[in-house]
Amino acid sequence: MASSTETHIEDNDPLDDPPLDFAATESFLRQAMTMILEDAVKKATDVRQKVCEWHPPEELKELLDLELRDGGESEARILELCRDAIRYSVKPTHPHFFNQLFAGLEPYSLVASFITEALKPSLYTYEVSPVFTLMENAVLKKLIQTVGWEEGGDGLFNAGGSMSNMYAMNLARYRHFPEIKELGNSAAPRLAVFTSQECHYSISKAAALMGIGTKNVFVVPSDKRGKMIPSTLEEQIKSIKSEGGVPFIVNATAGTTVLGAFDPIDEIADICEKYKLWLHVDACWGGAVLMSNKHKLLMKGIHRVDSVAWNPHKMLMACLQCSAFLVRDKSRLLQRCHSARASYLFQQDKFYDLSYDTGDKSVQCSRKPDAFKFWLMWKALGASELEQRVDRALAMARYLADEITKREGFRLLMEPEYANVCFWYIPPSLRDLPDGPEFQEKLHNVAPVVKERMMKKGSMMVGYQPHRGQANFFRMVVISPQVSRQDMDFVLDEIHSLGKDL
Amino acid sequence: MASSTETHIEDNDPLDDPPLDFAATESFLRQAMTMILEDAVKKATDVRQKVCEWHPPEELKELLDLELRDGGESEARILELCRDAIRYSVKPTHPHFFNQLFAGLEPYSLVASFITEALKPSLYTYEVSPVFTLMENAVLKKLIQTVGWEEGGDGLFNAGGSMSNMYAMNLARYRHFPEIKELGNSAAPRLAVFTSQECHYSISKAAALMGIGTKNVFVVPSDKRGKMIPSTLEEQIKSIKSEGGVPFIVNATAGTTVLGAFDPIDEIADICEKYKLWLHVDACWGGAVLMSNKHKLLMKGIHRVDSVAWNPHKMLMACLQCSAFLVRDKSRLLQRCHSARASYLFQQDKFYDLSYDTGDKSVQCSRKPDAFKFWLMWKALGASELEQRVDRALAMARYLADEITKREGFRLLMEPEYANVCFWYIPPSLRDLPDGPEFQEKLHNVAPVVKERMMKKGSMMVGYQPHRGQANFFRMVVISPQVSRQDMDFVLDEIHSLGKDL
Repeated sequence: MASSTETHIEDNDPLDDPPLDFAATESFLRQAMTMILEDAVKKATDVRQKVCEWHPPEELKELLDLELRDGGESEARILELCRDAIRYSVKPTHPHFFNQLFAGLEPYSLVASFITEALKPSLYTYEVSPVFTLMENAVLKKLIQTVGWEEGGDGLFNAGGSMSNMYAMNLARYRHFPEIKELGNSAAPRLAVFTSQECHYSISKAAALMGIGTKNVFVVPSDKRGKMIPSTLEEQIKSIKSEGGVPFIVNATAGTTVLGAFDPIDEIADICEKYKLWLHVDACWGGAVLMSNKHKLLMKGIHRVDSVAWNPHKMLMACLQCSAFLVRDKSRLLQRCHSARASYLFQQDKFYDLSYDTGDKSVQCSRKPDAFKFWLMWKALGASELEQRVDRALAMARYLADEITKREGFRLLMEPEYANVCFWYIPPSLRDLPDGPEFQEKLHNVAPVVKERMMKKGSMMVGYQPHRGQANFFRMVVISPQVSRQDMDFVLDEIHSLGKDL
Repeated sequence: MASSTETHIEDNDPLDDPPLDFAATESFLRQAMTMILEDAVKKATDVRQKVCEWHPPEELKELLDLELRDGGESEARILELCRDAIRYSVKPTHPHFFNQLFAGLEPYSLVASFITEALKPSLYTYEVSPVFTLMENAVLKKLIQTVGWEEGGDGLFNAGGSMSNMYAMNLARYRHFPEIKELGNSAAPRLAVFTSQECHYSISKAAALMGIGTKNVFVVPSDKRGKMIPSTLEEQIKSIKSEGGVPFIVNATAGTTVLGAFDPIDEIADICEKYKLWLHVDACWGGAVLMSNKHKLLMKGIHRVDSVAWNPHKMLMACLQCSAFLVRDKSRLLQRCHSARASYLFQQDKFYDLSYDTGDKSVQCSRKPDAFKFWLMWKALGASELEQRVDRALAMARYLADEITKREGFRLLMEPEYANVCFWYIPPSLRDLPDGPEFQEKLHNVAPVVKERMMKKGSMMVGYQPHRGQANFFRMVVISPQVSRQDMDFVLDEIHSLGKDL
């Protein structure tokens, strides 16, 4: 008989038969899939249903049976728990969800996601993910063409845009100071990063994690439309250099988070060329305009940059997450910068072309084949339908902005040039107040209350924020082709209805 | 009429009707789900089917229609493309896939994955992910209890274990030198990381990315079983300190990648306490022993460490990815270290308890609710069934090791204490050769050829690697409860059958 810490086979270890009953499993999966299609797809996207069923944390804890126990539950109970999880979840695929920079249901992408989950692939070697390795290459190639790098480039899909922005910063650092990979930043001068005041917070998070330091992220002012001011960028670069700092990267944003602003890439590229700086464009949100002949001028000069972060899971509606990182370099910089050459994965005596093993381009080890989600929807829709969707979303944003200017009690922050429509709602009680501290203070309190009420009613979700000293305003984001002009009207009617007594 | 770069509504922008036909979408999704269940679940896990259908890259490109075009394809064609993608993919859920540290089909976890993909949640705020925020908390709480931190702790789920190991390093650095977040590493002394020679390559990748430098990762020798030697660790710490370096973290590994070795946590904890160093345990692979009363002694002392990385997607079979990062600190270190306080997400005037907004604990922005995949399977199976699965897998590894010692032509590298069984296959032609350079060289060439042949036949997948100057050996990994003793016998028979002529 084995002792308690050994692992010899015992009578109660029936190693002969796998304990999984596949017929039962199959029946459970069929029931679950039917339920998912009904509750998590059909009902979740039905405009007549609530976008959320709000409960505060303590109450929701009571409604969900969260505790993990020693014993298991029946399959019927598991399906019930799934139904509850779906019921009490917010529905980002609902036509009245405008709260984040992603929304809507993309059925082809969803099917690719389901396949991915069922197959459990991971993308380090061609050997374990042949199909998805080639698909990622095909999508990257197409995106690189779309960006306009005629000589090609390199890239990979990351777990989110924050990661892509960090990769850009690491490649830029490696190109300027390859010795930092081995010796660390303490062997190098004080590095300086430049980005606009409207940029995403991942730039600052990357600088913190990478040992560059958030104080070495120099924030370039933006103009009133939220675009970086190139002349100020150049002044700052000169000033930092004169103090002994070493600029090495400029991050431009194509589609800022709040305002949807596009930094002037062409002018920034001139400066980067002059000072030999890496130019990265965070186009996670705005990259979609490159699909549109009508709107791609917003990113004029993109072919001149060194790297691009572009998330098809945002405007192009691929399932979460789908984040491309593209780099113009063709000298294997991505691999040289990130490689660790683990011998158990990247054996040199394999029987196929090792250049298909992408794992050493990544800081992660396991990596999901997110490109597949975009590949399949592109196959189904074609570039032309993707273009139409972008054009439709921007036309819809334009319609909403026009409505806002027409309606009493609504005030546009600025004319949109992308899909972000920022505006205040002014309740009747404030409409006669003169603009001043009292008005601003009262206005500041409107959006949070309207937001609370829409959440509690479950009628829609629209975000708000304070921004550059301005009173809280709403940020509507138009993405999904599943929304119509009627939905835009609904948003404005509903805000008025929820806030008119304030 | 609008000009070409403006976005006014035109006649060809039918903004009134959403162009999505839900009835057609539903029918497509139903067909796709039936196909996924048949091809990607049932057939993929059928032992009578191939684990892979090998084609070299150039040939597979011909078989897949990879190109992305302007026009879209029919739904029938899309389903055909999906079938091809599944057909030519490797099947990690197949009972004869033993190639990575994950394997098998876990139906409950799979259902949670499907729900996640359909709902598109992202985990930065309670507002957009109430259910999954609470579920993540519930799973973290249970894992923290399992680790044995009686006063609780903190944590989150990451996009993979590499990320978790990096988080540990960043927290350790922040605790020792909080000013680095703002000022960067160049403001600090030369930091030193300690880890064993058997550790995962993510430690070195993290040091490179974080500006610490790979040369400041000090590699502590392991004993013959692959366990870090604590006395040498202490000598190295003293030596680095005497040279002016500043040790700040020790990474111990519970379940090394190749050998499945467990570093002696208790003894390492003594040293870390003595020198006031952060102790992180990379238990991505081995953490599962904590579920087993029989095997948890392998991680004796785990309650004394500062942080743990533990991937339930490995031994516990949750769908990819499911990676917990746990930290013992209760002073909001995780948040203070990573926060950027983006005002558009983490508004301070929200109407609920803001401590439920987890987004600022993370370096990522969007984060998937991976805890749900583990929560649901735990609910269905209970801790007791999870424990039985771990015990069964280790008993199976034990059975395989016994078989290897019994069979002619097989040689065990060492007795396994976990689920990694490392061994050589010696073809008849080599059995009479004396051990020496000629024998080792010939032996080194055996595993790659057997691997190539098994891939081309599609009969199974088992990894091999060179390791510490030894000839290439096979690393079998036993995980799934869906495999039986017969499958173990099959692996050995098949290796012999594929390699006996070498």
